[in-house]
Amino acid sequence: MAAELHMENLPRSLELIYRDDHACLRYLDQRLLPGELLVAETEQWREVVDIIKTLAVRGAPAIGIAGAAAIALWVENEAVIVNDDDFEEALGLVAKEVSEARPTAVNLKWAVDKTVEYVLSLLEDGYPLEQMGSKVCLYVQELTAEDERINRAIGEHGADLIPEDARILTHCNAGSLATSFYGTALGVVYTAASQGKVQHVYADETRPVGQGARLTVWELAQAGVPVTLNCDNMAATLMAQGKVDCVIVGADRIAANGDTANKIGTYGLAVLAKHHGIPFYVAAPLSTFDFSLATGECIPIEQRAAEEVLPQPIAGVEVFNPAFDVTPAELIAAIITEKGVFKPSELGKLQ
Amino acid sequence: MAAELHMENLPRSLELIYRDDHACLRYLDQRLLPGELLVAETEQWREVVDIIKTLAVRGAPAIGIAGAAAIALWVENEAVIVNDDDFEEALGLVAKEVSEARPTAVNLKWAVDKTVEYVLSLLEDGYPLEQMGSKVCLYVQELTAEDERINRAIGEHGADLIPEDARILTHCNAGSLATSFYGTALGVVYTAASQGKVQHVYADETRPVGQGARLTVWELAQAGVPVTLNCDNMAATLMAQGKVDCVIVGADRIAANGDTANKIGTYGLAVLAKHHGIPFYVAAPLSTFDFSLATGECIPIEQRAAEEVLPQPIAGVEVFNPAFDVTPAELIAAIITEKGVFKPSELGKLQ
Repeated sequence: MAAELHMENLPRSLELIYRDDHACLRYLDQRLLPGELLVAETEQWREVVDIIKTLAVRGAPAIGIAGAAAIALWVENEAVIVNDDDFEEALGLVAKEVSEARPTAVNLKWAVDKTVEYVLSLLEDGYPLEQMGSKVCLYVQELTAEDERINRAIGEHGADLIPEDARILTHCNAGSLATSFYGTALGVVYTAASQGKVQHVYADETRPVGQGARLTVWELAQAGVPVTLNCDNMAATLMAQGKVDCVIVGADRIAANGDTANKIGTYGLAVLAKHHGIPFYVAAPLSTFDFSLATGECIPIEQRAAEEVLPQPIAGVEVFNPAFDVTPAELIAAIITEKGVFKPSELGKLQ
Repeated sequence: MAAELHMENLPRSLELIYRDDHACLRYLDQRLLPGELLVAETEQWREVVDIIKTLAVRGAPAIGIAGAAAIALWVENEAVIVNDDDFEEALGLVAKEVSEARPTAVNLKWAVDKTVEYVLSLLEDGYPLEQMGSKVCLYVQELTAEDERINRAIGEHGADLIPEDARILTHCNAGSLATSFYGTALGVVYTAASQGKVQHVYADETRPVGQGARLTVWELAQAGVPVTLNCDNMAATLMAQGKVDCVIVGADRIAANGDTANKIGTYGLAVLAKHHGIPFYVAAPLSTFDFSLATGECIPIEQRAAEEVLPQPIAGVEVFNPAFDVTPAELIAAIITEKGVFKPSELGKLQ
């Protein structure tokens, strides 16, 4: 049964806008979803760092854009008070703080570095500081638009892998909310759904933060895709019952050999998919690849606070709370990018 | 590093007691743990059915004892108003309602049937109804004491499987709280810990009800066993990091071929253990075996309310919430019982 798509019901997760000659980042506060749809704004680059750290904006491509926006906001709103001679050093310090807001998703550093490079190129061209802000903001807006184009390309390439009447399982939220718009893993779902091929999506709730339970099911329901929420520990049963034709997830960093860091739980899901003979796909833009790392062992894994798992501490009880895990390349059937679909062994072509 | 055990810090989860010539079931309300240690009492058999349904008392052996206690409470407090000719029929109706409080754990029906048989044997021996209550209560108290002896025997047999400095992963709560005292899977942990062999226990939080996060970690910490709580979706990472030497879980029903129904998430854990070459053990008393079922496919699986997974419904979002799954025998290294340790292929010896 074909789902009738309503992408117009999905809000943009973030965009850098101009108003009254001021730049500000407008973002959907994802901590409040699905109960409340709050669109907030900030002109402060430090607040953007907080937004990233506290998961108000999350998802590898989205935090990349947020990081780039933080640089633009600094240039636009604060750089003017910096002495010209100190500009490069001050920019470097801001870039470092933004890049390190979260360690695992390489998109953040990628987007910050790109934006810093652009600022430095303007500087080299002799652009006056006072006019630089609007140029950098335009640059970030173009990055944002490019992200959506990339996601739609990922959707097109990935949809070719989706069979008719597909039942798709996903983990965490690699959806429109994790990007500027449209999504990576869910971008594939949306394009396949627009082709009438998606029968159902199963969404892992994704403990401890609940990106599946709060974001993925909400976003899919908004868009009109039939969706069922399951606890993470129920995915194996869905597979054993023959209810899953393929698994698609996003990625936070992909090493040169195809090893993929993604939300905690992804690795276990890949093992389960292998056991049940179900193809396991990763969907991610090229900005998620880190060819400087030979394997996934080198990917830094963020450890988050115990309170996320156990809000009321219990005396004598420790908590294990890594935010990500690494799925070895051999468990991944294919990686879907804006340049096409690749087996992990074929990634050399992209370097 | 050997854990110093403090079993005296663990409360009994339930016991049938006499006070002022009245029988009543005293039970720890596990819905409130770990925040509140509330010991409640009831003389009403129907309330015992509610207690079982709402998970105030849970765990296959514990709900067996609760079910037997419900029969005793009916005989003691209500049977006297039943006409002698209607006694057997009334008893049958009560037994049916109690047995059906939850469908998957066979211990419930086993204990109710045993108690009903005992009542009928008293009836056949010409015992007057007025004196029957105290006899049946004594019988249930003996069942309760026998449960603890069985658990300690399971602990002794199972501890032989545990290596020195063991790091053990468990799912749900097959602990003292799931039985009259001492536990099945955790009974093995306690005995191994008393032998100085337990380095650490990892406890899956066990969504959606959180038996691991609320009960297992609390009970192990009370007893002095070093424990770390992890989300269900982190177990694969613990295994990949070489932090798990074996997995031990309880069971709600074991079919003749060794297929084992247990808390949802157990099956996926068994697949992960196999992938990582980690032995996967089931610990359960003989009352958990159902030799009338050839395979696990015949085990009825309780489906619970959507609200357990998604407290605030989201329009257009369905919920999948089976309370149990079935682990095929081939994924189980051994089943630990009070009669010794058996491979699933050896269960014929127990019939």
